[in-house]
Amino acid sequence: MAGAKKRLAVLGSTGSIGRQTLEVVRALPDRFKIVGLAAGSNTTLLERQVKEFRPEFVCYQQGKAHPVFGDYQFLSMEEMATHPQVDTVVIATPGSSGLGPTLAAARMGKNIALANKESLVTAGHIIIREAKLSGARIMPIDSEHSAIWQCLEGEVKPATRLILTASGGAFRGYTPAQLEKVTAEQALKHPSWQMGEKVTIDSATLMNKGLEVIEAHWLFGMPYEDIRVLIHPQSIVHSIVEFIDGSAKAQLSCPDMRLPIQYALTYPERLSNPELPRLNWDTISHLGFEQPDWDTFPCLRLAIEAGKKGGTFPAVLCAADEVAVELFLSHGIKFTQISSLIEQVLSQHQPTAQPSLAEITAADNWARDKVFKLASGDKNPC
Amino acid sequence: MAGAKKRLAVLGSTGSIGRQTLEVVRALPDRFKIVGLAAGSNTTLLERQVKEFRPEFVCYQQGKAHPVFGDYQFLSMEEMATHPQVDTVVIATPGSSGLGPTLAAARMGKNIALANKESLVTAGHIIIREAKLSGARIMPIDSEHSAIWQCLEGEVKPATRLILTASGGAFRGYTPAQLEKVTAEQALKHPSWQMGEKVTIDSATLMNKGLEVIEAHWLFGMPYEDIRVLIHPQSIVHSIVEFIDGSAKAQLSCPDMRLPIQYALTYPERLSNPELPRLNWDTISHLGFEQPDWDTFPCLRLAIEAGKKGGTFPAVLCAADEVAVELFLSHGIKFTQISSLIEQVLSQHQPTAQPSLAEITAADNWARDKVFKLASGDKNPC
Repeated sequence: MAGAKKRLAVLGSTGSIGRQTLEVVRALPDRFKIVGLAAGSNTTLLERQVKEFRPEFVCYQQGKAHPVFGDYQFLSMEEMATHPQVDTVVIATPGSSGLGPTLAAARMGKNIALANKESLVTAGHIIIREAKLSGARIMPIDSEHSAIWQCLEGEVKPATRLILTASGGAFRGYTPAQLEKVTAEQALKHPSWQMGEKVTIDSATLMNKGLEVIEAHWLFGMPYEDIRVLIHPQSIVHSIVEFIDGSAKAQLSCPDMRLPIQYALTYPERLSNPELPRLNWDTISHLGFEQPDWDTFPCLRLAIEAGKKGGTFPAVLCAADEVAVELFLSHGIKFTQISSLIEQVLSQHQPTAQPSLAEITAADNWARDKVFKLASGDKNPC
Repeated sequence: MAGAKKRLAVLGSTGSIGRQTLEVVRALPDRFKIVGLAAGSNTTLLERQVKEFRPEFVCYQQGKAHPVFGDYQFLSMEEMATHPQVDTVVIATPGSSGLGPTLAAARMGKNIALANKESLVTAGHIIIREAKLSGARIMPIDSEHSAIWQCLEGEVKPATRLILTASGGAFRGYTPAQLEKVTAEQALKHPSWQMGEKVTIDSATLMNKGLEVIEAHWLFGMPYEDIRVLIHPQSIVHSIVEFIDGSAKAQLSCPDMRLPIQYALTYPERLSNPELPRLNWDTISHLGFEQPDWDTFPCLRLAIEAGKKGGTFPAVLCAADEVAVELFLSHGIKFTQISSLIEQVLSQHQPTAQPSLAEITAADNWARDKVFKLASGDKNPC
């Protein structure tokens, strides 16, 4: 337990993962020092976090000064992610905003605790290459990838197959006809996880699992053919790893994001944290597994296809999904239109192979614009 | 794959685990050389094995020469287990016959692939101490302990709890009244595992799981209070390990002993073996867990109590069980008498703490004699 405290920057500190990261830090005060906090919108909460954790740097809306933070040093997220004072950067910003700081941290050889899916999904080919060159360690915070990571520890050879489990989301077992009528309020009621709104909707469409397949491909260098998805409604088995001899390992825990967060922050150690729940084997009598309903939830297929095609397709997928989910949450489109809009945008995309960051950003912008146009009824835009 | 072949001695080569060990060797001919084979009764099979694998030494009934083996060099099991030509000794002999060679190999610092339960159960305090002094590595071949070992690989700190799974055996869910009438033939029909007769009956009484709890205590240095048993009828999850942060890992595979055998022989590597089955996630839809029925299957409690008391109690437990199971298989007693006889013998035992090998052997002999006397109706022997 002795030794210097690990110095953390938390990007996206006011979001769901950011707040839970700070809960872990609060529970283990001897182990961590918050040196940087970054948030984009919730000034009130950021102000409270700054007062509590007394970081050295603050980032509000990418480095803008703000009166409530007084004389704090303001940095951009990229500056914070690469600052020599920071040992580990937690990247928990939403959507495409994670890409810049993740890449900057990867280039600088930082320890990266990565919750942001989009950066690896859209630019995995760049980030993994840069991390290998610099020696940066990317530690996943997603429960599924953390499970795989935990199961791979100590293994001499790579896995032969990864099985990502999925809760199935709010509408597991629904028919296409039932799905036509579901509301945003229903979609936000996740059966097992407490998460942010975007990821809860992505969980209901299975897009979340599709993005995780692409992430797993990059994180673990696994071919898409050897990544499988299984629905596991209890959300206790967080993923399964198969090895060449026919043995498999699974990681199990209560569905609580603080565990994968803490594992990434304390790796390779595990620490006692009384706040973290234990599995209760007096009550666990059934762990169920079923095949995903690929036809009713097309986002899973769309994501995996986009991942396999590569290039700018995953960027288009992410951007289109982000806009479509926003439209659904603001009651602008129906639930089933999320996948149909994304599919249309993907089908109209002219891809670029091995895209640069600028090309990824351009594809992202093109896709956002395209979803808006399609959703507003302009069915044949140029 | 290059490098010298691992040189194996297989003690108990004609039994279930011995034969499956030779199947693994047959499937991976570039990796292993059989230098010693030992068996106690099945001359015909041993002769066939000797012809196929051409070992350097043979042990038949503890070193006796036998005409069918011609000019082969005959060694005792202890000599074979400690021979400089042997890298890894597989100890798959039944019952108390495993104790001598296991201890000899532990003292000599050998790699020990251990399938024999009784040696650790009766003399764990000696074997583990000797192995620590000599640097011997004990690698479990039991599926449950192999599962725990696999899940602990790469972990920095010890586990906080071990959960041994049990199929529940042939009579899971039976009432005490139903158990009164079961036959040896029924008891030998194990629902998920192909094993030897003794272990199949031990599985039906849950004694097997009790012995495994004691083994796990010694192998992993885990207090009895932190070892738990769960019934898992599918025999796919072979055990579960819990860590201080609330995370747990499970090892899963088809119920096939060749996997834990191979893992022990190739550790820390895993090797492809087309003979080993793969889990089929198209058909696995339910993994069930239930609490053991402690009242209907008292052997589980008897074993754990004997383990906790320590001294010569575990030796008495093993010996009494061995005789009681023999009596049941030869239709000398009823199924439910197995546990009641063992309980009576344990209750009459005058234990010795920290027993020597001689004291363990004396307790073993005393217990065998006592079971026979009790079973033959001599209810009050001196």
